[in-house]
Amino acid sequence: MRVLGVDPGLTRCGVGVVEGVAGRPLTMLGVGVIRTLPDADLGHRLLAVEQGVEKWLDEHRPEFVAVERVFSQHNVRTVMGTAQASAVAMLCAARRGIPVALHTPSEVKAAVTGSGRADKAQVGAMVTRLLRLSAPPKPADAADALALAICHIWRAPAQNRLRQAVALHTANATKGRTA
Amino acid sequence: MRVLGVDPGLTRCGVGVVEGVAGRPLTMLGVGVIRTLPDADLGHRLLAVEQGVEKWLDEHRPEFVAVERVFSQHNVRTVMGTAQASAVAMLCAARRGIPVALHTPSEVKAAVTGSGRADKAQVGAMVTRLLRLSAPPKPADAADALALAICHIWRAPAQNRLRQAVALHTANATKGRTA
Repeated sequence: MRVLGVDPGLTRCGVGVVEGVAGRPLTMLGVGVIRTLPDADLGHRLLAVEQGVEKWLDEHRPEFVAVERVFSQHNVRTVMGTAQASAVAMLCAARRGIPVALHTPSEVKAAVTGSGRADKAQVGAMVTRLLRLSAPPKPADAADALALAICHIWRAPAQNRLRQAVALHTANATKGRTA
Repeated sequence: MRVLGVDPGLTRCGVGVVEGVAGRPLTMLGVGVIRTLPDADLGHRLLAVEQGVEKWLDEHRPEFVAVERVFSQHNVRTVMGTAQASAVAMLCAARRGIPVALHTPSEVKAAVTGSGRADKAQVGAMVTRLLRLSAPPKPADAADALALAICHIWRAPAQNRLRQAVALHTANATKGRTA
């Protein structure tokens, strides 16, 4: 399973590609940051994010895109930019028919460190260890994107089982109605 | 001046095209709503908004796109969807090199009704009158999109004068430094 993780942001949008399956060592295929200029107008910044995401999709052909689910508890201005950058990433994936999964920051932290309240340093340290890197990826947005991809690979089996159970239940319910 | 107004939203995205110049009667060229299904996944909803906006840009070839500036004071879930739909509209415009302007809800209300705290009915009534329509456009999102376009046409002269003044000031300041 090859996953592109996206830590959305307008100034810095973290991207990282991880390949592997749950229970086996994972491999990092690429990591980076898409940057846009804070003083450019919003339309052009979104365009730069789109071009960046398209480049990563072209180069790595991921089967899934995992994007951080945005909450609005934080700073208002930042959240708007984050929501807009995440929309662009989801749109790029949807245009290619690539399934998009959203994971919350605490789901990601819990997946890679065991604690939903881990700090940036802890996430960076675990990403470094799990992907057998020589140093933590910088900036933190890049490490977070890899953590998102790892989280998706590890959560996917459980999510698939859940989806199958729901599908089975729905099929049975339909059968019940038509009988 | 031909302007596409966009009242962004995921469930209903209002769109309206108005042509005219400040101080002259305005003409409505089209109005509508782009709808997406609330139970579809977010990527596909954003894709549907993109296809809808592209269709409006293709048909009407506006010179400007005016989008409602999103604030996060309101309901959290709604605001995220609004921010994401607005990102898609801005992206579509930027890809074609069409300038995007953002206007706040109170700027739009003040432009068409004289009061920044006017209600939906008042905005609908003024849009109907200003565009010489037989009835207020429904739903409210469609009327709001037309109000945004009108607001842009009326504010543009002042905004252009401001931009020219800033450009002149910058040019003079540069001259001062190089002299």
